[in-house]
Amino acid sequence: MKVRVDVRLRAAVLDPQGAAIRQALTDLGFDRVGEVRQGKVIELELDETDPAQARTTVEEMCRRLLANPVIEDYAITLPSTDPPH
Amino acid sequence: MKVRVDVRLRAAVLDPQGAAIRQALTDLGFDRVGEVRQGKVIELELDETDPAQARTTVEEMCRRLLANPVIEDYAITLPSTDPPH
Repeated sequence: MKVRVDVRLRAAVLDPQGAAIRQALTDLGFDRVGEVRQGKVIELELDETDPAQARTTVEEMCRRLLANPVIEDYAITLPSTDPPH
Repeated sequence: MKVRVDVRLRAAVLDPQGAAIRQALTDLGFDRVGEVRQGKVIELELDETDPAQARTTVEEMCRRLLANPVIEDYAITLPSTDPPH
């Protein structure tokens, strides 16, 4: 199955990339832009059919590699089982 | 309103970041991982109440700054108007 992982900086953490994007948009004339945050999304193909097992595996991937839990949050989306977020 | 923009490499474009993540996951013992693709997500606060106008504005942002149309696709999600993707 195809699993999607959203990794974003925690709300309390300063996001210089987001701030740079906001400044660039403002410079281009987009003057109605407020806060901008940039995160990353990782889509991976997993050879697993059980959704619960897939979630457990991907959570371990997040803890060990994909996210930095000190400054980042992550959200795992399995195919057509999760509501949009 | 809060607008979300997903920017990802086109399917035909090689994704070295994704490949590096896959290799790292394999090295960690996650041996059931297939293709991995990494994209970015930009969340921005826009001072606009009309969804159609918001979409038009953000599409222009994508064309002019947020995405590289030669190698990247983008998807815009407005609050609670779009189906999940």
